[in-house]
Amino acid sequence: MERHFDEELKDLRKDILKMSDLARESIAKSVEALKNRDKAQAQNVIDADSKIDEMELVIDEKCIDLLARYQPMAKDLRFVTTGIKINADIERIADLAVDIAQRVLELADKPLLKPLIDIPKLSEVAQNMVREAIDSFIKKDVALANKVVASDTEADNLRNSICTELTNDYMSHDISTVTRAVPLLLIARHLERICDHATNIAEDIIYMVEGKTVKHHHE
Amino acid sequence: MERHFDEELKDLRKDILKMSDLARESIAKSVEALKNRDKAQAQNVIDADSKIDEMELVIDEKCIDLLARYQPMAKDLRFVTTGIKINADIERIADLAVDIAQRVLELADKPLLKPLIDIPKLSEVAQNMVREAIDSFIKKDVALANKVVASDTEADNLRNSICTELTNDYMSHDISTVTRAVPLLLIARHLERICDHATNIAEDIIYMVEGKTVKHHHE
Repeated sequence: MERHFDEELKDLRKDILKMSDLARESIAKSVEALKNRDKAQAQNVIDADSKIDEMELVIDEKCIDLLARYQPMAKDLRFVTTGIKINADIERIADLAVDIAQRVLELADKPLLKPLIDIPKLSEVAQNMVREAIDSFIKKDVALANKVVASDTEADNLRNSICTELTNDYMSHDISTVTRAVPLLLIARHLERICDHATNIAEDIIYMVEGKTVKHHHE
Repeated sequence: MERHFDEELKDLRKDILKMSDLARESIAKSVEALKNRDKAQAQNVIDADSKIDEMELVIDEKCIDLLARYQPMAKDLRFVTTGIKINADIERIADLAVDIAQRVLELADKPLLKPLIDIPKLSEVAQNMVREAIDSFIKKDVALANKVVASDTEADNLRNSICTELTNDYMSHDISTVTRAVPLLLIARHLERICDHATNIAEDIIYMVEGKTVKHHHE
């Protein structure tokens, strides 16, 4: 029994890792589609989302099934319930990549406001935060989770500077930029929300490993 | 044992209902603050959020505790794991009300773009969707959950018309409106995300009561 449970936990970790890889791939591809004004690539991101939605259902079922069959206690119980929460966050992260792809479709036929300011940089930060948040879950690594929580300030600052630049330097000077600047402004927001989800995941990990106090402290 | 579990479930329902009432109150107050350009009211919404964050922790603990002590099966197990997921959604809904309040603070010293177009209407839709989504959980009412899922189209349409009007009728015509229109555009997005969370909750309820097929269908 013990060994089976551990093996199934290992499978669960693998599934969550795989799903988060797909979500990160969607972020990378959607921002690549923005850079290259590649409608087909943006559409690919949108189409790939149903696969991630399916994975969410499968992982949810696995978690509930683990609870029902093994009735795990203490650390193991918390690991599975945290898995349920993380699963939902990853699915939303993938949805936000779809949101970015939809903005890319809106922009694809218009001349780009170059040089996309710091959007590619914010995308890198977002992808790293997601990767590290999931790694901290897999390895129960609180130090790494704390690093993710700390990175959120960088993400907020980047998003702020992107939005300020779009509003003050483009839209407020040249009316013809509005319909191109608004989707970029929303993309910056979508990326920042991805960082928020990564932060939520990291806070859940700290809570899972160390108990109440730490998460409370972060909030 | 049986009766205790049922009583604790009743408590859990009550807590979730109370937390969702606070979240809806935050939405209502933040949009009221927008209408009245009331900075103090906006600040109240921001300050009240720590109470909701605390409730999230308490409810999470109760769910995990219920799983550990009673090891519920079948429908009861799903009710508790759904509670864990819904809890996270309500907390995010309250965060989005805080986001709205922050936009209100940005706008408070500038002349309003009147008549706020359809933002108060979208706020009503959002509050109703949240209320009905939580009711569908409390009553395990799939018909009500389906109604919430159907309402999401109305929310999307309202958000689209608000954003189109702000972009095409204001920002693209009059540069001086940009710094006031952008926060309104973001508020419309925040409200739509609240509707998305309500839809997620409703989909979870349908899944909880009827099993895989229906949620799959909605996705």
